[in-house]
Amino acid sequence: MSGGVPVRAGYSQIAGHLGGPAFLPLRRDAADGAAKPLIDLTGGVPDEGVLPYRSYDDATHAVLTDAGTAFKSVSYIPPAGIGRLREQVARWRGVSVDNVLITDGAMNGIFLAAQAMIDPGDRVLVETPTFPFALRIFRRLGAQVDTLALRRGGADLDGLERQLRGGARYKAFYTIPDFQNLTGEVTDGAHKRRLLELADRYGFAVIADDPYCDLWFGDDEPAGFPQGYRQADDYSPLYEIGTFSKTLGPGWRVGWVIASADAVRRLAAIRLCVDGNGSAIGQYAISRLLEDPVWFDDLLDAERRLYRGRARTLTTALHDTFGGSVLFDEPQGGFFLWARLPRGIAVDDVRVQDALARQNVLVTRGDSFYPDRPDASYVRMGFSAIGDDRLREGVHRLGDALLPLLR
Amino acid sequence: MSGGVPVRAGYSQIAGHLGGPAFLPLRRDAADGAAKPLIDLTGGVPDEGVLPYRSYDDATHAVLTDAGTAFKSVSYIPPAGIGRLREQVARWRGVSVDNVLITDGAMNGIFLAAQAMIDPGDRVLVETPTFPFALRIFRRLGAQVDTLALRRGGADLDGLERQLRGGARYKAFYTIPDFQNLTGEVTDGAHKRRLLELADRYGFAVIADDPYCDLWFGDDEPAGFPQGYRQADDYSPLYEIGTFSKTLGPGWRVGWVIASADAVRRLAAIRLCVDGNGSAIGQYAISRLLEDPVWFDDLLDAERRLYRGRARTLTTALHDTFGGSVLFDEPQGGFFLWARLPRGIAVDDVRVQDALARQNVLVTRGDSFYPDRPDASYVRMGFSAIGDDRLREGVHRLGDALLPLLR
Repeated sequence: MSGGVPVRAGYSQIAGHLGGPAFLPLRRDAADGAAKPLIDLTGGVPDEGVLPYRSYDDATHAVLTDAGTAFKSVSYIPPAGIGRLREQVARWRGVSVDNVLITDGAMNGIFLAAQAMIDPGDRVLVETPTFPFALRIFRRLGAQVDTLALRRGGADLDGLERQLRGGARYKAFYTIPDFQNLTGEVTDGAHKRRLLELADRYGFAVIADDPYCDLWFGDDEPAGFPQGYRQADDYSPLYEIGTFSKTLGPGWRVGWVIASADAVRRLAAIRLCVDGNGSAIGQYAISRLLEDPVWFDDLLDAERRLYRGRARTLTTALHDTFGGSVLFDEPQGGFFLWARLPRGIAVDDVRVQDALARQNVLVTRGDSFYPDRPDASYVRMGFSAIGDDRLREGVHRLGDALLPLLR
Repeated sequence: MSGGVPVRAGYSQIAGHLGGPAFLPLRRDAADGAAKPLIDLTGGVPDEGVLPYRSYDDATHAVLTDAGTAFKSVSYIPPAGIGRLREQVARWRGVSVDNVLITDGAMNGIFLAAQAMIDPGDRVLVETPTFPFALRIFRRLGAQVDTLALRRGGADLDGLERQLRGGARYKAFYTIPDFQNLTGEVTDGAHKRRLLELADRYGFAVIADDPYCDLWFGDDEPAGFPQGYRQADDYSPLYEIGTFSKTLGPGWRVGWVIASADAVRRLAAIRLCVDGNGSAIGQYAISRLLEDPVWFDDLLDAERRLYRGRARTLTTALHDTFGGSVLFDEPQGGFFLWARLPRGIAVDDVRVQDALARQNVLVTRGDSFYPDRPDASYVRMGFSAIGDDRLREGVHRLGDALLPLLR
């Protein structure tokens, strides 16, 4: 170094304050030292056993040995993604290829959509509970974040309409419409339509973050957004964000945004200044896999069966252990169960945290998902990557930890 | 849609004005219709024939079939990158693992570094000519961009020091120190040291964008930045940005930032709000490839030989065709040759553009790389991905297009 004390270049405001972890497991520190092997119910990843690694290997092999794709699969690609994958996603989702931008997963889609609409000082509305990483994106862009309660069937649109009539204005509303990654709630078709009609009337965008919509447990997929909003050329308030992360694995970093063709062009231009373009090898491999739609349908079916079974194991175990003292809705899809703890038990209570740590079982604190008024009476349990026996054992430990506190 | 004319949600300021293409080929539109097959000297990609697809296939196969990595390679990974690849890059580059953040290529490294330091209104200095995509990143973050002339051996640091003594202050200086992707210029060791001493004395950061430093044509690699600045824990002004894009292919989207451990932590936190993390499959595959350092050294040697030969073919052809009327420095590394056109020939002259279009040869206009005072007397020629015969043919066509204009 040169002589003298260096004058330091400053960080930006964003880099100046590092965020803590957005998901707060209950006393992981204490749990790590416990005697029993850990049961971790905080994850949101696909099951290790269900993913088809052999097919993945076949796909990368085909792409890297085919003279038509080998060089392309390790080259620069367009910022909106490779054409064939955009076509495949467009056909699957029932829109035009110009409405599809391929992203590096759903988080990247939220980031790009937020970049396209938020300036410092803009107001953004989020349903609560909400996904803390999305909240961070909005806040780092300088947005002021307001909240709207998520109810059965969707966000409180009566409340929203009252606000809007009273003069409140928002740049965007952020929602996780299907099998929400906290509550498991599904926004029904009527709510989806009404939300977009309000968006049209009052001029806000709708960011619909939808990573779980393909993983339904019933007979039918959830109702979609009205088709009239999904194939716009010039303008639509709707930005639908999807991903292969929950079905093919997050390590591919391949997702998409479906929006108006005009918005897709803008997101692609923004992307040039973020990382230029996405992973060519990942996009070519996934495109190769999707050339066999039967294979993909069969995989989705197998995943739905697996996760439905695990959800049932978890709910049965919760009934058996807690009777009616833990309240929850049976998950209809996705990876998570959202449970209200017995009256008098709260996740911000150090007695509760200590009891769970002694049992070495991790759940996600519900109070981390409310930006304004934390509700400490909920926990989230992820069942996707945990086998049936360990799910039962996990609930057994929850009972051993919490039931004595009720006496 | 709902009744009535929809009120449109606005775009952000960033998305409101789309940038045009940053690289301006000479009349691509006219050229596309010409009779001769196109010779495109605008690219900056590795040669198709030199990349080892079989090794890539072996690596993805190994990763996807090894029980220890299959699931991990399609899962979420830490935002700073997988530990093993960070270790490998750290050892290769002679720093500690805590100083390494894995990125999605160099562009993503510039973006993350810029996010970490630039707030709206900050002043950023760039050498000219400079890389337009980096310029876009700084401007989109609201920076005010000033320029410093690039000279033989590095930027004009005498001029910079006079400015700084006179009270000018910058948040960051952006430079491409080795085989600059426009001029091919190398910043020598003395310039590198002095730049960092100025950074320490006047409190600015140095963003050193270095994608070509491994592709030298002489006996030795270019001088590095002083080691004392490269392994800081708490603070260093230096952010070194590297990538495997030019050596293993940009489609992997794997690069790195080397910075202080504190800065690496901040960049990782920022990354959580951009795309969460990078491509696991890409990082695991490249890490597997790097386990054989002899293989990687041999590949780099083969690439250096190939590109050195092409640079010589191009310079010989230019001498043969133009004699001394086209001025350039023999490239010492990298992918590009920067040439001053014969006196009286300028790329913003429509006669010149028409003549090149008729020959169906594309070069990159030099005036697109000056943010303030465009200099239309230069063109850039990329030789990395064009075979010797076509390089000669390309120069022949340049002669046919330009020499008649001299008479």
